[in-house]
Amino acid sequence: MTFSLIANPDKYSVEEPIRQVLEWCRAEGVSVFVSETLAGHYPEMSDHKSVNILEEEQKCVDSCDVVIAIGGDGTILHTAQLVRKKQTPVLGINTGKLGFMANIQPENIEYCLRQVIDENYSLDSRTFLKAELPGGKRYDALNEFLFTKKDTSSMITLHADYDGVFINNYWADGLIVSTPTGSTAYNLSAGGPIIMPNTPVMVLTPINPHTLTTRPLVLPSGKPLRIRSLNSSEHTLFTYDGMSHQVESDLNVTISQSEYSIHLIQLPGQNYFETLRNKLMWGLDRRKS
Amino acid sequence: MTFSLIANPDKYSVEEPIRQVLEWCRAEGVSVFVSETLAGHYPEMSDHKSVNILEEEQKCVDSCDVVIAIGGDGTILHTAQLVRKKQTPVLGINTGKLGFMANIQPENIEYCLRQVIDENYSLDSRTFLKAELPGGKRYDALNEFLFTKKDTSSMITLHADYDGVFINNYWADGLIVSTPTGSTAYNLSAGGPIIMPNTPVMVLTPINPHTLTTRPLVLPSGKPLRIRSLNSSEHTLFTYDGMSHQVESDLNVTISQSEYSIHLIQLPGQNYFETLRNKLMWGLDRRKS
Amino acid sequence: MTFSLIANPDKYSVEEPIRQVLEWCRAEGVSVFVSETLAGHYPEMSDHKSVNILEEEQKCVDSCDVVIAIGGDGTILHTAQLVRKKQTPVLGINTGKLGFMANIQPENIEYCLRQVIDENYSLDSRTFLKAELPGGKRYDALNEFLFTKKDTSSMITLHADYDGVFINNYWADGLIVSTPTGSTAYNLSAGGPIIMPNTPVMVLTPINPHTLTTRPLVLPSGKPLRIRSLNSSEHTLFTYDGMSHQVESDLNVTISQSEYSIHLIQLPGQNYFETLRNKLMWGLDRRKS
Amino acid sequence: MTFSLIANPDKYSVEEPIRQVLEWCRAEGVSVFVSETLAGHYPEMSDHKSVNILEEEQKCVDSCDVVIAIGGDGTILHTAQLVRKKQTPVLGINTGKLGFMANIQPENIEYCLRQVIDENYSLDSRTFLKAELPGGKRYDALNEFLFTKKDTSSMITLHADYDGVFINNYWADGLIVSTPTGSTAYNLSAGGPIIMPNTPVMVLTPINPHTLTTRPLVLPSGKPLRIRSLNSSEHTLFTYDGMSHQVESDLNVTISQSEYSIHLIQLPGQNYFETLRNKLMWGLDRRKS
Repeated sequence: MTFSLIANPDKYSVEEPIRQVLEWCRAEGVSVFVSETLAGHYPEMSDHKSVNILEEEQKCVDSCDVVIAIGGDGTILHTAQLVRKKQTPVLGINTGKLGFMANIQPENIEYCLRQVIDENYSLDSRTFLKAELPGGKRYDALNEFLFTKKDTSSMITLHADYDGVFINNYWADGLIVSTPTGSTAYNLSAGGPIIMPNTPVMVLTPINPHTLTTRPLVLPSGKPLRIRSLNSSEHTLFTYDGMSHQVESDLNVTISQSEYSIHLIQLPGQNYFETLRNKLMWGLDRRKS
Repeated sequence: MTFSLIANPDKYSVEEPIRQVLEWCRAEGVSVFVSETLAGHYPEMSDHKSVNILEEEQKCVDSCDVVIAIGGDGTILHTAQLVRKKQTPVLGINTGKLGFMANIQPENIEYCLRQVIDENYSLDSRTFLKAELPGGKRYDALNEFLFTKKDTSSMITLHADYDGVFINNYWADGLIVSTPTGSTAYNLSAGGPIIMPNTPVMVLTPINPHTLTTRPLVLPSGKPLRIRSLNSSEHTLFTYDGMSHQVESDLNVTISQSEYSIHLIQLPGQNYFETLRNKLMWGLDRRKS
Repeated sequence: MTFSLIANPDKYSVEEPIRQVLEWCRAEGVSVFVSETLAGHYPEMSDHKSVNILEEEQKCVDSCDVVIAIGGDGTILHTAQLVRKKQTPVLGINTGKLGFMANIQPENIEYCLRQVIDENYSLDSRTFLKAELPGGKRYDALNEFLFTKKDTSSMITLHADYDGVFINNYWADGLIVSTPTGSTAYNLSAGGPIIMPNTPVMVLTPINPHTLTTRPLVLPSGKPLRIRSLNSSEHTLFTYDGMSHQVESDLNVTISQSEYSIHLIQLPGQNYFETLRNKLMWGLDRRKS
Repeated sequence: MTFSLIANPDKYSVEEPIRQVLEWCRAEGVSVFVSETLAGHYPEMSDHKSVNILEEEQKCVDSCDVVIAIGGDGTILHTAQLVRKKQTPVLGINTGKLGFMANIQPENIEYCLRQVIDENYSLDSRTFLKAELPGGKRYDALNEFLFTKKDTSSMITLHADYDGVFINNYWADGLIVSTPTGSTAYNLSAGGPIIMPNTPVMVLTPINPHTLTTRPLVLPSGKPLRIRSLNSSEHTLFTYDGMSHQVESDLNVTISQSEYSIHLIQLPGQNYFETLRNKLMWGLDRRKS
């Protein structure tokens, strides 16, 4: 079995977990692929018996059996773009606060790697949404697509239709089109509902809408949702999982279920609702007295 | 073709629409089944050539080809309980403000009945959720199941699990388990999302929860959601589509997709989003200036 | 200096804090008034050198220099009704989770009593709202007045006017009229804003209103807000700080600033925003990663 | 009596109302001051007997007895900056949808001008908040101060303290500090409460905060609220009533009650709650059926 290691060396305290993983792999004789960029931050890697340095992260991911992603949910989103076509299993090790997807705590690294090697895990597959633009551009998002006003602009108007039927012209700071996985991210801050992973839906959540009766709308993800900006391109931003698409002309995006997914390694005893309760502190209410 | 007529004679101005429907049926030679109770409110019905008076509403509905429901969404909920097993098509004529389901306006009655006779319509099938209680009791709801505190009680605690996995203990005024159809009813007032009809989900919405981070949760309706009251039975109410179940002992309800549905007649040109925009006045914003 | 002790012996673990307070008082030679009811739960009190048992809680409170309230915010609300006319300072010792008003932790009891004896404290005065009913009945609330539907009733309609000018007919599960102090209690669960104590306002918050654009409304408390139920009395509940008023005829309540207040003892270093951050866990976000 | 006329010739259908006002003034012999810019759009003004063209809008406003503002609430905000020191009464004529402040409908212009001349009106005085920056810069806002993230930035962190006491570090898209007058504008879209005009408070409303328990906070406006951005200046925008302040270094703004106000002319029969019901369509609920 071979691993590859994905981490953002600029963020979190990834150093110690990386060291732990490599240590464990050396002891167990497991090969680990590491990108040149990451290896550049940790000179000792080049001498490490288990480490194979490859030029690109993409190559690492394409060559291994299991990806070890060290960081937070942001690192998982980054990894998702790399693995989505090959669907290699991903183990997320969280180095900051508990993540929704990166939910292995550093103190359990050795135990968890052992489970992985022993194939004692299930896969929690999270599907993407895809966005198609005129001219053939395509993006896949694991969390959300985001249409927002630029800078000093006042609200923008976004036209939405679903399966060819007009929904509404939203006058708002923007619109979120979120996957179930992304429902606990920005969608939640904007007042959207929590959606259980792998429910075959997407949610269209207006951001600070002027019309108070426009509310989050849950739609089956099997049919296309089209969002068009009725403002000029310089007033609208379009992002997918936090990455920007350069809006050059009129924005016209068709969103539907992607054929891609990311397979998160879920160890025995882990479950979605427990993560939810922990992250949202449902059990910790101090107002109750 | 035969019709049956369902209306609440105590409510709305149903008299004139009833008269119109019967008039049209006489002219067209269409038979209409009417319950004794309804006929009792309109003595002229007994002399009406087209009218067949049957003892029970249920018999009327079971004997006809199409049900004409006159009233508001409340009348459709009532009709839904009658037709759910036989799935006879239902035409909803609204006599008050526009309904989400009763969306034929009285002024269009004759045109619409003509479309029905000519079978120039599609069916908008809305599925129920079912609730099963220990002891074999079962209820079906088209809109929602509701668990609420009684009267002067302070908040209640409701335990929820999904497919056997613990979700949360909600400390709140209550919980709504809503269908997509019911998402625009009480669920919306309590902060839940709008869900497109026939999306295979249910939404669990806490009512005024003490813990501010517990939010509406969308779940696939294919697996069982179980709600148990952790308070004594005298402090908890359980209702389905507004009707009460007498809670006698500890409340323990398992909710999942029902095999039943109601088939609403949808005339050419009608669509869900238009009804939504009209009912929620999305296009009428007077704050924009 | 004399104290009186108010506690709910049925709730929380009040026993140990009571013992600690009495112990400290014995050592310091401070007299403590205790009601017969409370003393009845703790037989050893009758032998206690510092303890003076009086018939009624009201007499205890009227006879002492400082009230020691042991319990949670519910105990403070109860104490508030007892002290509101005489305005004796109140020290709130919390025995459960941290309270907004009962914010002394049991482990600091001795230190805090010392500060009280040394008069090393400031007073955080919280004003009441008063409600006046036809026929001369009057209630004072430190947290909120509540108008809600009864039991199985559907929504109720409540007519509100302010200083004689019509505001709105609310169609909802109910209405909250909250003080700034009560703004972090039920008002917060119903979507109302947090209001800094002693801001001269009240907030009118609809509970699950049918009309989605009716929102919490902040009004100066100097002028009268009148709430009338447009439903029959058997469908409406009226409560003040959780206590019920028996609604016998049409409900018609005029609410405005009360002349009463409760003086909470605030020790050096305590402040409102810190309590807020702690109780609402603003600093503990586990979703950030 | 002399008027001055403020309008945005690029917006709304201001032309016809302008014509009507000038016509009426000619007939009544009332002088009207008009800025060169506005007159430049309407060449016929220079021949108009009643019209006095002055170089600047400020001069017009400083020279007249009453300002006639034609447009929407945006035009009132613009006018507010011009009149705030001299406090000349302002009549707002709405040319689009009904405004909260510009609430005279064009069809009533002649009647309303007559009431103004006859001094048959009351003044609805709306106070400003002021913002003071290091280095002596000062801004006044009638609606709100806004601190937001720039463009593609992720959330920003804003430090808030009140009267020198730390409130919270908000991690959000931004913060609104709104006056009561501004409470029905952007604040309402972001989930803030409605506040009756002239209540001596401000409301601090986080925009899409990451921490779900941070809620709008109402504070007395008599003491200073200080907002500091913990991000570098290039990531933060600061605006007052929609106008931008160029953030050059660390943003550090102290906000409190301004000594300025705008005096809106209120004709007999007008009142705030009626405007509220109309603008927010409280009476028009189509979901009720």
